[in-house]
Amino acid sequence: MRLKTAIFSAGLLVGMAATAAFAQDAAPAAAEAAGQGSEAATAAVSGAPSPEVAYIFNTLLFLIGGFLVMWMAAGFAMLEAGLVRSKNVSMQCLKNIALYSIAGIMYWIVGYSLMYTDVNGGYIGTFAPYAFDPVGGNALDTGYSTASDWFFQMVFVATAASIVSGTLAERIKLWPFMIFTVVLTGFLYPIAGSWKWGAGWLDAMGFQDFAGSTLVHSVGGWAALAGALLLGARHGRFSKDGKGGIAMPGSSIPLATLGTFILWLGWFGFNGASQLAMGTINDVSDVSRIFANTNLAAAGGVVATMILLQVIYKRVDVTMVLNGALAGLVSITAEPLAPSPLWAIIVGAVGGVIVVFVVPLLDKLKIDDVVGAIPVHLCAGIWGTIIVPASNSDASYGVQLIGIVAYGVFTFVASLIVWAILKAVMGIRVSEEEEALGLDRTEVGVEAYPEFSLGRV
Amino acid sequence: MRLKTAIFSAGLLVGMAATAAFAQDAAPAAAEAAGQGSEAATAAVSGAPSPEVAYIFNTLLFLIGGFLVMWMAAGFAMLEAGLVRSKNVSMQCLKNIALYSIAGIMYWIVGYSLMYTDVNGGYIGTFAPYAFDPVGGNALDTGYSTASDWFFQMVFVATAASIVSGTLAERIKLWPFMIFTVVLTGFLYPIAGSWKWGAGWLDAMGFQDFAGSTLVHSVGGWAALAGALLLGARHGRFSKDGKGGIAMPGSSIPLATLGTFILWLGWFGFNGASQLAMGTINDVSDVSRIFANTNLAAAGGVVATMILLQVIYKRVDVTMVLNGALAGLVSITAEPLAPSPLWAIIVGAVGGVIVVFVVPLLDKLKIDDVVGAIPVHLCAGIWGTIIVPASNSDASYGVQLIGIVAYGVFTFVASLIVWAILKAVMGIRVSEEEEALGLDRTEVGVEAYPEFSLGRV
Amino acid sequence: MRLKTAIFSAGLLVGMAATAAFAQDAAPAAAEAAGQGSEAATAAVSGAPSPEVAYIFNTLLFLIGGFLVMWMAAGFAMLEAGLVRSKNVSMQCLKNIALYSIAGIMYWIVGYSLMYTDVNGGYIGTFAPYAFDPVGGNALDTGYSTASDWFFQMVFVATAASIVSGTLAERIKLWPFMIFTVVLTGFLYPIAGSWKWGAGWLDAMGFQDFAGSTLVHSVGGWAALAGALLLGARHGRFSKDGKGGIAMPGSSIPLATLGTFILWLGWFGFNGASQLAMGTINDVSDVSRIFANTNLAAAGGVVATMILLQVIYKRVDVTMVLNGALAGLVSITAEPLAPSPLWAIIVGAVGGVIVVFVVPLLDKLKIDDVVGAIPVHLCAGIWGTIIVPASNSDASYGVQLIGIVAYGVFTFVASLIVWAILKAVMGIRVSEEEEALGLDRTEVGVEAYPEFSLGRV
Repeated sequence: MRLKTAIFSAGLLVGMAATAAFAQDAAPAAAEAAGQGSEAATAAVSGAPSPEVAYIFNTLLFLIGGFLVMWMAAGFAMLEAGLVRSKNVSMQCLKNIALYSIAGIMYWIVGYSLMYTDVNGGYIGTFAPYAFDPVGGNALDTGYSTASDWFFQMVFVATAASIVSGTLAERIKLWPFMIFTVVLTGFLYPIAGSWKWGAGWLDAMGFQDFAGSTLVHSVGGWAALAGALLLGARHGRFSKDGKGGIAMPGSSIPLATLGTFILWLGWFGFNGASQLAMGTINDVSDVSRIFANTNLAAAGGVVATMILLQVIYKRVDVTMVLNGALAGLVSITAEPLAPSPLWAIIVGAVGGVIVVFVVPLLDKLKIDDVVGAIPVHLCAGIWGTIIVPASNSDASYGVQLIGIVAYGVFTFVASLIVWAILKAVMGIRVSEEEEALGLDRTEVGVEAYPEFSLGRV
Repeated sequence: MRLKTAIFSAGLLVGMAATAAFAQDAAPAAAEAAGQGSEAATAAVSGAPSPEVAYIFNTLLFLIGGFLVMWMAAGFAMLEAGLVRSKNVSMQCLKNIALYSIAGIMYWIVGYSLMYTDVNGGYIGTFAPYAFDPVGGNALDTGYSTASDWFFQMVFVATAASIVSGTLAERIKLWPFMIFTVVLTGFLYPIAGSWKWGAGWLDAMGFQDFAGSTLVHSVGGWAALAGALLLGARHGRFSKDGKGGIAMPGSSIPLATLGTFILWLGWFGFNGASQLAMGTINDVSDVSRIFANTNLAAAGGVVATMILLQVIYKRVDVTMVLNGALAGLVSITAEPLAPSPLWAIIVGAVGGVIVVFVVPLLDKLKIDDVVGAIPVHLCAGIWGTIIVPASNSDASYGVQLIGIVAYGVFTFVASLIVWAILKAVMGIRVSEEEEALGLDRTEVGVEAYPEFSLGRV
Repeated sequence: MRLKTAIFSAGLLVGMAATAAFAQDAAPAAAEAAGQGSEAATAAVSGAPSPEVAYIFNTLLFLIGGFLVMWMAAGFAMLEAGLVRSKNVSMQCLKNIALYSIAGIMYWIVGYSLMYTDVNGGYIGTFAPYAFDPVGGNALDTGYSTASDWFFQMVFVATAASIVSGTLAERIKLWPFMIFTVVLTGFLYPIAGSWKWGAGWLDAMGFQDFAGSTLVHSVGGWAALAGALLLGARHGRFSKDGKGGIAMPGSSIPLATLGTFILWLGWFGFNGASQLAMGTINDVSDVSRIFANTNLAAAGGVVATMILLQVIYKRVDVTMVLNGALAGLVSITAEPLAPSPLWAIIVGAVGGVIVVFVVPLLDKLKIDDVVGAIPVHLCAGIWGTIIVPASNSDASYGVQLIGIVAYGVFTFVASLIVWAILKAVMGIRVSEEEEALGLDRTEVGVEAYPEFSLGRV
């Protein structure tokens, strides 16, 4: 009976979503996504911000958005620290601060230019470290400080790298993971990102991904999935008689909750600053709209998840609700500007629904995703990307699908190859004994909570 | 002897405060509170920000203030998670992310228009969802982006809802609490808020509440008090022989401390952005003054609390100090612009004194307020509101009192009715057995710290 | 063999650093560090921000930088709470919120004027409370709101005070520590700070310290060192047979990690807003460059530390890596604008190397620094200050050394005197029994984690 109620509720939600989709005026997102064009037009008008003032506003947007997204690194760290068992928490903390650092260096050494320099409708940029404006700044030509744009883009690649860290927790070796991060942040993410944000071939086709449902979240999710398949599940996670997984509950729900709130906060920078301009009243109005829609989508994910969980399970599993919020955020990320408030709530709500159904599905497929990163970032990322045309008439379902498939094939296959090489050359998984003892003791040498008795392992 | 010292110290503090109050030049806060008017006057002057530039600055203030106040949702979550016992922590986390989501949806569906649209000196706004500026923005007329103002106001109603969550912890049922939140954020808070910020009847009378000592904090406090009275105390909290309560210590002081710091940080947005404008040098100077006074008040709350605690109890209970900081912040919130630095410290210090004396008083009255939200938000909110005329000559004690009483009666009575209906229809309290087992197991199905042995319940 | 590898690696890193230093074009940081001058020159040019608009941008930079640095108070609290044992966590939380409050009050009562008012190339400012602009603001003359500058500078002195709190943890008495904080934030830090930022004698000599490697971090470190010497090590920390210390592991690695991320985030404000201006395209471009270099330095600290730890110890101690990040941040703080990206990474990396070698050195010297604040803030602060000339030709090694020595002698001696007076008058250390029971029970009366069994003390 509960199953039928659940199926009906899901059907109801899908029906409402479909209706709202068609009722939704798919308005052209117009030139606003870039935003730079309108500035020239208004500059001649009395009162419009001068190029200098616009430069400062644009740069400031990148700096504020940048530090908000940097803060998401702490969010992933806390979310993961909360969702792994206590014997692996130090390792998770170490991985997160390490991957954020590696991303920041790789994206300067090679990543940014590979993604943005001279892509020209092609498949790849240029191999070169990136140079910032000299001390004292530069001319107005770009419309913003190059270092601010580098900083803003850098924290995005770090986000993609963080996604991988959660799925592979509790059994991956430290240094192979670091090497994979070097490859992901220095090469895979930038090359893939050049196809759209670097003005590459997918951008020329009209593929839309405002802030990265695909370029960041699905890319991270595909890399994580590839790793999870090669890594294997944690010992004892899935029973042998096909009855489903043994739960390995996270050690701190409040840390996981804190992490979720941090990510939610950072997302205002993630989506809002992806307007890439704040130097006109149109641009700042769009940034505001994006803030509001981003919040509505997350709220929709939370509420949808809670209702579904109560109906299906009669209890509201807070970890599913946290992931529902995140899935809502990922879903709106491909198009946070165009939707009406109602559509933003619905897009986010479907993200939450995805989490509730995909998490048990992964269990059935015996894919061990410790924190639920695959439903949240990969699946909701695909949903968010495919549904863009419902609110943005500049997009088409066909091209969105091409983009989703292109990113999926490239990232999944490339990641699989890198993981396979690492597995063959140095091994990527700790021994069964190390896994039982916990990575904190074996890889880090520092226990996360040395004074608290362990009730159970 | 210690009691005499305490009484003397309290008298000393009150005497100092009263003297400083009368010595304080109660300067007119003038047109600065709104701030918009001066912009038109200066626009004609060479160099003053044009309307376009002012629009961007104003909008940016709302966005920055907005994300800082959104972050306070995490602060309440951590403060409450730290102050409840471990068997109820997951529930507290769930409630906080849920209420923030519900607030964000209700305030779009009905709340904002009920508070701001066509109030015209009356008692209520308009029933309608709120519409944002279209993609590409709008004309200059409002002076800021409508979505940014909605976002900024929305995070305020979420704050009021968070206050209720702490007081009722450890024995309230999840879904009745969610329904109350729907009513509070969709109807009670907006209707009451329309009387002042929506330009309703209290605003016409000259009632002053810059950032919400009454409209947000007392409103949340009254709703919490009404709920606490109908809910009853936790079993065993108060002994039957009249000797006072059994302490049920919070499970994590560091989380409570983190929560307090988060709230303190967010308060710069809460108070600072309530200047509602940043497009003139006068406005941004006022925002700066507000930042400084806000910090001074919180500091005053901390120091006063520490000194009092040392004198009275010979130990400095950190949870009281945390609440002292918060009470200082609530106290200054009604008027953070006009005070001199010394007056800001004193206003905050009195807030801290209130906490030290009201917490044991609630125990005597057998009102079980788990986190101290009633002294911090309700009592300090009343203090902060009533003392506005001491620094702001636009206010009068009589009108402040009328406002305090109006909000108190309305919010308390309306909340009592809603809680009573919920209690009658579905019950609002878990069973005694569920309470003993802990809400994490019974309502959430997820333990907060499954691996850490419980020393005691 | 491992030792030889370590020594070789260290030599390699030093060699690389030295070469890069001399290869580095030491460019003049020009007038950008102050940044105000260029505004007047460009004001006459069409399109350059008017003085009013520049005023708002400058003030906004101080407010954003200010709240980011305020947030670092939470970072220190969490870092320290994570690195002390559970019986002392409440005390650490209390100390941190208390010292932040005291700093905020002392810096208004006397600190700011002592540091900035009428120093005129001398050794000290003026004794006076500081007055903010009145409600409604002031004339344009300063170029920014006085309250915003006060707020920004205030959070810096709070940072210096936080540094002391970590080193002296687990055996210091509460009120002597508070009194020391009063003296440090009201007098020592401001007098010392006047010599450079207040335009005092060291500034006249050409000493460079962009954001405080010496003025904030070394000052805090010297005060901490003086206190640690007079306080003595924790009982049992160092064995009597000369074989080295007994580790007293921190109670929560995730909290320490959170604290580190918070500090990293806040550092963008700490360094970025020390440009002191954002009202020209040159200034905002410099702020962006500072953001990028700050992040690169921290990343360099993390990566260098991880590699060294793996080579020397075969395990990557996450607490050392966290301190590596912080040391990287401290190191770049003296000159975050001029370096190239590569040089920023190297400066930070050397900071990380310093941590790896100084921590065991302190053990050998039997100096008990609970959180590693001395290598991170004092040693890396000295390194960051002395190496400024490698990238900034306005600086000279001789004058940098004079400044380092002047600050060291003054702060260390003055702190030693204050600690000695406190020790003689009231005692600064708890009794051996209190230390064994834990400060939470004896000074605070509140346990940090009352429900979690203690595995060991």
